[in-house]
Amino acid sequence: MRKIESIKSIREYLSVARKADSLIGFVPTMGAIHAGHRSLMRAARADCAEVVVSIFVNPTQFGPSEDFAQYPRPIKADLAACAEEKVDAVFCPSVEEMYACGSATTVQVSGLTEGLCGGHRPGHFDGVTTVVAKLFNIVQPDIAYFGQKDAQQATVIRRMVHDLLWPLKIVVCPTVREPDGLAMSSRNAYLTPHERRQALCLHQSLSEAQAAIEAGHRDTGKLIEHMRERIVSAGPCAIDYIAIVDPDDLTDLRMVEKRCLIALAVRIGSTRLIDNILVDANSSAG
Amino acid sequence: MRKIESIKSIREYLSVARKADSLIGFVPTMGAIHAGHRSLMRAARADCAEVVVSIFVNPTQFGPSEDFAQYPRPIKADLAACAEEKVDAVFCPSVEEMYACGSATTVQVSGLTEGLCGGHRPGHFDGVTTVVAKLFNIVQPDIAYFGQKDAQQATVIRRMVHDLLWPLKIVVCPTVREPDGLAMSSRNAYLTPHERRQALCLHQSLSEAQAAIEAGHRDTGKLIEHMRERIVSAGPCAIDYIAIVDPDDLTDLRMVEKRCLIALAVRIGSTRLIDNILVDANSSAG
Repeated sequence: MRKIESIKSIREYLSVARKADSLIGFVPTMGAIHAGHRSLMRAARADCAEVVVSIFVNPTQFGPSEDFAQYPRPIKADLAACAEEKVDAVFCPSVEEMYACGSATTVQVSGLTEGLCGGHRPGHFDGVTTVVAKLFNIVQPDIAYFGQKDAQQATVIRRMVHDLLWPLKIVVCPTVREPDGLAMSSRNAYLTPHERRQALCLHQSLSEAQAAIEAGHRDTGKLIEHMRERIVSAGPCAIDYIAIVDPDDLTDLRMVEKRCLIALAVRIGSTRLIDNILVDANSSAG
Repeated sequence: MRKIESIKSIREYLSVARKADSLIGFVPTMGAIHAGHRSLMRAARADCAEVVVSIFVNPTQFGPSEDFAQYPRPIKADLAACAEEKVDAVFCPSVEEMYACGSATTVQVSGLTEGLCGGHRPGHFDGVTTVVAKLFNIVQPDIAYFGQKDAQQATVIRRMVHDLLWPLKIVVCPTVREPDGLAMSSRNAYLTPHERRQALCLHQSLSEAQAAIEAGHRDTGKLIEHMRERIVSAGPCAIDYIAIVDPDDLTDLRMVEKRCLIALAVRIGSTRLIDNILVDANSSAG
């Protein structure tokens, strides 16, 4: 496995694969690799002759009071994990390499970025779309892999690729969970043992909402209210949002009709956790 | 020469050149081809095995009170001009083809887009950068050619490509002028014979400023004032701006020190004309 730090070098490295017409699969990450990232690497490995992972903690997607400085950067363990997943090359540029002359240019997706996390993290998605645009232009992958855990991010990036016509395919892989249901996240490492137990309420509230929909409940206001009660009863926390939205345009639904995305963001202690679940009301037993 | 209207077809067409490792040159235009566009095609023809011209009057770069509807669209003459210049393929998509699902995504370059034309045409450069980003992702050229006549546009696109790391080179070709000095522009066709004569004041004022700099004048305030007098004395008009700026970051200069860009936009009748000249004070006789 190659570890590559410069844009010039990763381009040179990939030019060989491109000339050989090898399918290039790309998994952009911020490192702190967990089983969720690994599932993306495995999907890429199954599809593509060449698998590239990027590890880059992108400063422009963090707000001024967010956790950019403390975000975990266990580069040795990350490289070992990538090697275990038979990744061909890891691109781990410095901030200076990625933003050599500042960042006057931004890519913005309107609409989709306004609600959910976008409403609570101003500028976050502009940072995400801009750095992903840069990474796409560096790696020029045929397929890029993202996790359903970051549902809004996946939807926004899919829209960006569609609107700006990048010649690549986006694959979104299912959320990977701990045995007790907690969604894998690099930020889970911030939780104290007590907070770790409390955090189970996220997935539990999602599962209960799914069960309620499958039992025939359709009023999103009531479903959200039950979720809120479930989460608050688990302990002190701050709920950024609980929302039931159309999975394609992320607009709020009043009534569950067919497919919906139930998404939430909750702060437990100083840790902000997100989770979501896709529910198809048509396939319900109700 | 191939005329291609769909994104799918131009991609299929270009995949052959790409697999053969042919250098792809790209000249994006809004049609109404004149000698300026032809000079870009010739530069591309000299450099590249495959030359693609796009003809697309992009609605998103016109303001609501601007000339999108009346902008000339002489497609037959344009195709003939491209064929004369030995262009390999002309991509002329419909608005629907380019903006299939609206345009939620925009590419924005801050700073460089704020002054000069950007100050008088709000949203114009967002429209330009976004459509050029789309065209770059469709054509995936090795080299793209732009005219110095649209100096701010060339600077903004160069910055966009640099910031977002598109794997291509931007070439900016010199402004082509009529024998009497008027810069070639598709909008010259709007001018009455009287306005056409009056319009010479743009280039004349630029030439006089250049001569003054070469004679040792350095105070941009005075240089601009002389240009303003020259233009106003030619007849009734509305001056959007006359500016002497750094050619790289487009910031106003108080004193001419080395290289500078003198740029102006003037409305004569209902026609908005722009022109500019690059002056190197170091190479002056003064």
